[in-house]
Amino acid sequence: MSHKKLLIERLCNRLGYQFTDPSLLKLALTHRSGANKHNERLEFLGDSILGMVIAEYLFIHLKKADEGQLTRLRASLVKGKTLAEIAKELELGDCLYLGEGELKSGGFRRASILADALEAIIGAIYQDTGFDGAKKVILGLYQKRLTNVDLKSVQKDPKTQLQEWLQSRKLPLPEYELLKVTGEPHKQTFDVACVLSEKKVKTHGSGSSRRNAEQQAAEKALAIILDGK
Amino acid sequence: MSHKKLLIERLCNRLGYQFTDPSLLKLALTHRSGANKHNERLEFLGDSILGMVIAEYLFIHLKKADEGQLTRLRASLVKGKTLAEIAKELELGDCLYLGEGELKSGGFRRASILADALEAIIGAIYQDTGFDGAKKVILGLYQKRLTNVDLKSVQKDPKTQLQEWLQSRKLPLPEYELLKVTGEPHKQTFDVACVLSEKKVKTHGSGSSRRNAEQQAAEKALAIILDGK
Repeated sequence: MSHKKLLIERLCNRLGYQFTDPSLLKLALTHRSGANKHNERLEFLGDSILGMVIAEYLFIHLKKADEGQLTRLRASLVKGKTLAEIAKELELGDCLYLGEGELKSGGFRRASILADALEAIIGAIYQDTGFDGAKKVILGLYQKRLTNVDLKSVQKDPKTQLQEWLQSRKLPLPEYELLKVTGEPHKQTFDVACVLSEKKVKTHGSGSSRRNAEQQAAEKALAIILDGK
Repeated sequence: MSHKKLLIERLCNRLGYQFTDPSLLKLALTHRSGANKHNERLEFLGDSILGMVIAEYLFIHLKKADEGQLTRLRASLVKGKTLAEIAKELELGDCLYLGEGELKSGGFRRASILADALEAIIGAIYQDTGFDGAKKVILGLYQKRLTNVDLKSVQKDPKTQLQEWLQSRKLPLPEYELLKVTGEPHKQTFDVACVLSEKKVKTHGSGSSRRNAEQQAAEKALAIILDGK
């Protein structure tokens, strides 16, 4: 058995899926630089299946998330960077069929090529076995990331929330004042105030950066105005 | 039976789907202005199912379309404007649950509200019966549009194709010369030339607008350079 065949066999084991029609997998692994028949159509198909499976999972498991949160979470899970990370965990790059130029320039390590090939593999599995089989593989690949899904991470930060709350009520935007900077240059503490003139609210925040201090002050201001609704 | 119930019954007949759990349909028809529990989460789910079913259909039926064409076709089929058209064919607006303000301002006619509700209905059907049932309804709703899918409509026009071909080879862009305008002001004919200096190609085109004439000239130029590859 050739070295490449061994690598592809390892890939299938990591995917937890054995192809009935191995030519589909070969097509999914073929970059457009590698042959006339390449993986871009399968990538189109796989992308839509991946998006749907992740959407369904989030819909079912995050009953309290609103549409905006679900949309942002899904985007973070199906973006190229995440796909490339998963592809690297699978050592997918070693299995690709690339043209000479891409081989020489290290295309097997390029994030976009890896991400596209992973989507194409999902498309190929769907073609080989249908929806349920593809879904099972996707949920397997994403197991760790889906278990760790953090709703808080997709909530907007306090400064943005505060700004949007004020804008939607046509109130003036908050003003942030830098009150004090203390400590050594490499370990400073920033003290800021967040002022909502219209609401007669002034809160304080401190942090290791001006931004962090402002977020803290905004969070306190939000708590006051939302309490007083 | 109330009037609204009759309208909803008619909607189900047009969808070709009867809900096992009618509360899912009611949720799908409820705009955020109409109740605390509204259709936005179902819309998120339905959007991803719709995208996937249309992607799969195009993938299977348009074997010669490349990824770019498939992507553009899908976008044109699932965009809000198309969804709103289908929703109007279903007379979906009459079945919506809207808040007072939206009712008064004619929200039941607003394209975005109609499109979102149709996506939510797809999500509700998926929840009620699973993938195959939702797919069947989607393909039914899109039957006419999918039969009429026109691959040519998503191909790039000749001027764009020519420009991209030249750019990808780092060749100078084509020059278009207006040679002659003839005819009455309301019925003119434009004659133009397309010149590819580097390639020593000069073609002519004529048409009822300068743009049409240029497209024709570009098409001829493309034919010459692609023949000579």
